[in-house]
Amino acid sequence: MNSENATQDQSRTMTDLDFDKLNGLLAVVIQDAVTQRVLMVGFMNAEAYERTLETGFVVFFSRSRNKLWMKGETSGHTLQVVAMSTDCDRDALLITVKANGPGVCHEGFESCFSRTRVNNNWIVSDPRTFSPTDVYSDTKEAVK
Amino acid sequence: MNSENATQDQSRTMTDLDFDKLNGLLAVVIQDAVTQRVLMVGFMNAEAYERTLETGFVVFFSRSRNKLWMKGETSGHTLQVVAMSTDCDRDALLITVKANGPGVCHEGFESCFSRTRVNNNWIVSDPRTFSPTDVYSDTKEAVK
Repeated sequence: MNSENATQDQSRTMTDLDFDKLNGLLAVVIQDAVTQRVLMVGFMNAEAYERTLETGFVVFFSRSRNKLWMKGETSGHTLQVVAMSTDCDRDALLITVKANGPGVCHEGFESCFSRTRVNNNWIVSDPRTFSPTDVYSDTKEAVK
Repeated sequence: MNSENATQDQSRTMTDLDFDKLNGLLAVVIQDAVTQRVLMVGFMNAEAYERTLETGFVVFFSRSRNKLWMKGETSGHTLQVVAMSTDCDRDALLITVKANGPGVCHEGFESCFSRTRVNNNWIVSDPRTFSPTDVYSDTKEAVK
């Protein structure tokens, strides 16, 4: 952030995000503040967004479970908000985080984006950083 | 990518992405391959995805215009694919790109994520890198 060039955009406040374009949801990109790696994409409804602001930890809306979901609630691999940006359409968020634990992916990887496209196939390109069976109990933490 | 640890995931092919979870679309994160900055989030339907693979340049599906949209078709600020990853749910893509031109945002910024949340407000935290009125003609390139 270039603070000298920072100007307040009065028309945009914390409540002024566009949840309508994606049926009540924002697309949320999670990026590691240290490594700059993109760790995952999730979705927030207005309540998840407010909970994230209140707690300082990333809270998603799980589409598959139809409920709020604090990332790391099962695994302990929580995501602490470092900074938050929105885009020109105000329908997406970029959150840089301090990632607690060895990875965000329920399959045991640092990043959910662990498959790279090579020669028309998806190749598992990352080493596992933890054992999902050790971390997740009967109630597996959903990813989305 | 750690090629020594790379193992082919036979069950996942280039056509094996999940477009159903978001009504025919994938969420697509665009990250600059050099700076690691997240530049924008867009969406692809199956056709946009195939066109991206064919051309080597990012092609989105514009939800507002209901048509395919090669990023940079008006501005010249195209996005050349460097690498492509998918996540564990196969419903999102991360594409690292060579960004041609001074920025991807139709408002004249390097990144669409030009507003940072500070003290409960969204602050324009980036300097403009180009003049949108100089770059875009009558037919303004839609962002999403």
